[in-house]
Amino acid sequence: MKIELPIQADSVGPVAPKVAQFTTPLQLRSGAVLRDYQLMYETYGELNADKSNAVLICHALNASHHVAGWYADDPKNIGWWDNMVGPGKSVDTNRFYVIGVNNIGGCHGTTGPTSTDPATGKPYGASFPIVTVEDWVAAQARLADLLGIERFCAVMGGSLGAMQAVQWTIDQPKRVAHAIVIAGAPKLSTQNIAFNEVARQAIMTDPDFHGGNYHEHGTLPRRGLRIARMIGHITYLSDDAMMERFGRVLRADDFSFHFEVDFEVESYLRYQGEKFAEYFDANTYLRITRALDYFDPAMKHGGDLSRAFKDAEAGFLVVSFTSDWRFSPARSREIVKALLDNRRDVTYAEIDAPHGHDAFLLDDPHYHELVGAYFLRLAREIEHGSKR
Amino acid sequence: MKIELPIQADSVGPVAPKVAQFTTPLQLRSGAVLRDYQLMYETYGELNADKSNAVLICHALNASHHVAGWYADDPKNIGWWDNMVGPGKSVDTNRFYVIGVNNIGGCHGTTGPTSTDPATGKPYGASFPIVTVEDWVAAQARLADLLGIERFCAVMGGSLGAMQAVQWTIDQPKRVAHAIVIAGAPKLSTQNIAFNEVARQAIMTDPDFHGGNYHEHGTLPRRGLRIARMIGHITYLSDDAMMERFGRVLRADDFSFHFEVDFEVESYLRYQGEKFAEYFDANTYLRITRALDYFDPAMKHGGDLSRAFKDAEAGFLVVSFTSDWRFSPARSREIVKALLDNRRDVTYAEIDAPHGHDAFLLDDPHYHELVGAYFLRLAREIEHGSKR
Repeated sequence: MKIELPIQADSVGPVAPKVAQFTTPLQLRSGAVLRDYQLMYETYGELNADKSNAVLICHALNASHHVAGWYADDPKNIGWWDNMVGPGKSVDTNRFYVIGVNNIGGCHGTTGPTSTDPATGKPYGASFPIVTVEDWVAAQARLADLLGIERFCAVMGGSLGAMQAVQWTIDQPKRVAHAIVIAGAPKLSTQNIAFNEVARQAIMTDPDFHGGNYHEHGTLPRRGLRIARMIGHITYLSDDAMMERFGRVLRADDFSFHFEVDFEVESYLRYQGEKFAEYFDANTYLRITRALDYFDPAMKHGGDLSRAFKDAEAGFLVVSFTSDWRFSPARSREIVKALLDNRRDVTYAEIDAPHGHDAFLLDDPHYHELVGAYFLRLAREIEHGSKR
Repeated sequence: MKIELPIQADSVGPVAPKVAQFTTPLQLRSGAVLRDYQLMYETYGELNADKSNAVLICHALNASHHVAGWYADDPKNIGWWDNMVGPGKSVDTNRFYVIGVNNIGGCHGTTGPTSTDPATGKPYGASFPIVTVEDWVAAQARLADLLGIERFCAVMGGSLGAMQAVQWTIDQPKRVAHAIVIAGAPKLSTQNIAFNEVARQAIMTDPDFHGGNYHEHGTLPRRGLRIARMIGHITYLSDDAMMERFGRVLRADDFSFHFEVDFEVESYLRYQGEKFAEYFDANTYLRITRALDYFDPAMKHGGDLSRAFKDAEAGFLVVSFTSDWRFSPARSREIVKALLDNRRDVTYAEIDAPHGHDAFLLDDPHYHELVGAYFLRLAREIEHGSKR
C-alpha cells in the first residue's frame, strides 16, 4: 500500500527570517558609504561539518530573502522559489544549506530607503544611495563571513539574481564553486533600459512622489508604481503565453464602449498593479531598476565580456527559456561564449517553455530536473571532497 | 548635361487642408450618434475624368490628414507619408488622386473630443463617444460621396491604417478595387491590448485628467501622455534597431548614480514623450487605442477571419516587416491565409527590415519599389479601363 505523503513533506515548512547586523561601513560603487546596516536572510537545511554545502540564492526585482517555506503566522506567504528549494526538490535542503538574502536598497527589512537613517532619525527616502550588483555581492560576502562560509558550493539566481551569480564569479572567484545563471543577461539591451526608464518616469512624475520623500508628505506614489508594475508584467510574459491565458476574452458579451475593463487581460494587469503598489516601495523600485541598467561587467574591460571572466574559477550552469523576450536565449549564449573563451566548465540548456521570462519561477519539469541533476553533481563533489 | 532637379520636384509641394461638413447624423457602432461633424482632409494630384484614380490613405495612431507636402506658413510641417506619396513616388500623384483624411475622434481639426459640442457650447471632452474602425470607414465613405468618388482605386494604410483598409473591403466591397495593407494585423494580440491598457491607465490616473474633462479644469494630463508615448515608442522599434541607434551610450563618462538621464535612450524617450504631450489630445489617445483593441472583423463570424472576408472583392497587397514585433509578419500571414481561403487576388511581401513596426514609415528602397510596382499595375488597370 502506497502511503501518500502530506504536502509539507516537500516543503521546508515553517521558517523564520533572521537579521544580520553590520557595523563596518560598506563603501558603495557610487562613492557613497553605508554605515550600520542590516540584511534580512533565511536559511534552509543544515550547514555540514566542513561548511562545503552552502548555496546562496539571489533574488530578482521584487522578491526577497523569503525563498522557501512559509511563516507560521502567515501560512499563505510562501517563498518565491518554494517549487525549487526544499527537501527532495531540485535544490535539496536535505543535502544543501540554502541561504536567501534580501539586498540592500530593498523594502523587506534589509536596510533600504524605507529604513530609518541613523543620521536624521527619519526614513532615508530619496537620500538612500544608488546601489549596484557589485554592492550587493559585497554585502552578501559579508553575510557569508558572518555565517562562517568561506566558499559557496553554489551561488544561484534568475534574472537580476542571475546577474548577481555572475558578479560573484568575477568579484569573489575563490568563494564560489558553481554559479547557476538562469534567465540572465550579461547587460541590459537598449530596449530593457527603455522599459525601466518608462517605469521610473511613471513613478517620478507621480505628484505623490515628492522627489522621493513621499513619507515626509504622508503620501505614496501608488499610481506610478501601478504603471511600473503593469509594464513589467507585460515584459515578463511571452506574447503567446498572454494569448493562451487571456486571449481576447471579454468580461461581458460585447464591448462596453468605455474605458473600464473590457478584456480579461486589463483586469489582470490592474489587479497586479494595485497589489504591487500596496506593498512595494517606490524608491526601492527605482534603485533596483537602476542596478539592472548599470550591470555590465564587460564595461571596465572595454566591452569585452570574455576579459571580464578572466579570473572566474567557478563552474557554470546557464539556463535560458525559448520564449523569454526580456532576456532571450541569445543573451545567455553571450555569457556561454565568454565563458568558453576562458575555457570555463559550462553547461548550457535552452528550455523549450512558452511562458516567457517568468518561466524561471514556474514549475516546468524539464527545467527543474535539469537543475536537480546539476545539484546532484554538486552533491557528489561535496561527498568526494573534491574542490573545483 | 544632367540637370539637377530641385528637391521640390519629388514633393507635392505646398498644400492646404480642406474641411468637409456633414449634417446627416452618423450612427456609431457604440449606439451613440454623431450629428453635425466635420472631417479634415487633403488631396494631391488630379481626379481623372471617370473618377477611377482615387486613392484613400488612412492614418495610424497619431498621424492626420496631412499625408504629403507642406504648409506654406509652416514649411517644416511635412506630411507623414511624404516619402511614399508625390510626383514620381511610389504612390505617384502624377497618376493618382490621393486623399488623406483625419478620422473622427482625432485632434487635428476633425470633430473629436477637443471640438465644441453644439449641444453644450463646450468641448466634448469625456462625453465624446467611443469610435471604431467601422465608424471611421463609414465616415470616410461619406467623404467619398461628397467628392463624387464611387469607387476607390485603392484604400491604403499602415498599422491602424491597414486595419481601415481591411475594413473597407468588408464593409464597402463594391467601393474599393485594391486594399494596401501594410504592417497590419487582423486584430490585436493580448500583449498589444495590454500595452494599450497601460498607456490608458497612465493617462486616466494622471490627477490632471479629471475624468477626461481636463479642459474644464484648465489642465492637461501631460504626465500620462508622456508615459503613453514612451511605451508606444518602445513597441514601434525593434530591440536591434534601438541597440543600433542608442546602444548603451552614456551622456557622461561614467554613471551618474542618480535618476536623471544616464543613457542616450532615456533622453530620446523623454524628448519624444514631452513633444507628444504638447500637441496630442489625451481623450483622442484613449479613443484611438480603444479602436485598436476593438478591431476584430472575425468577431461577428465566430472568430473565423476567412468568413469575415467572404464578401470582399478587392485585390490585396499585404506587406509586413521581419523585425516588427508589434504586428509581426505572422499576423499579416493570417490575413493572407484568410484571403486565399476566399480565392482573393493577394500579393504578399515580407520586407527584410531592421527597424521594427516603424519601418512602414521609413524610406526602405525595397519596400517603396514594391509598393510602386503594385501601383504601376493599378495605373495600367485604370489605363485599360479594366474593372476588377
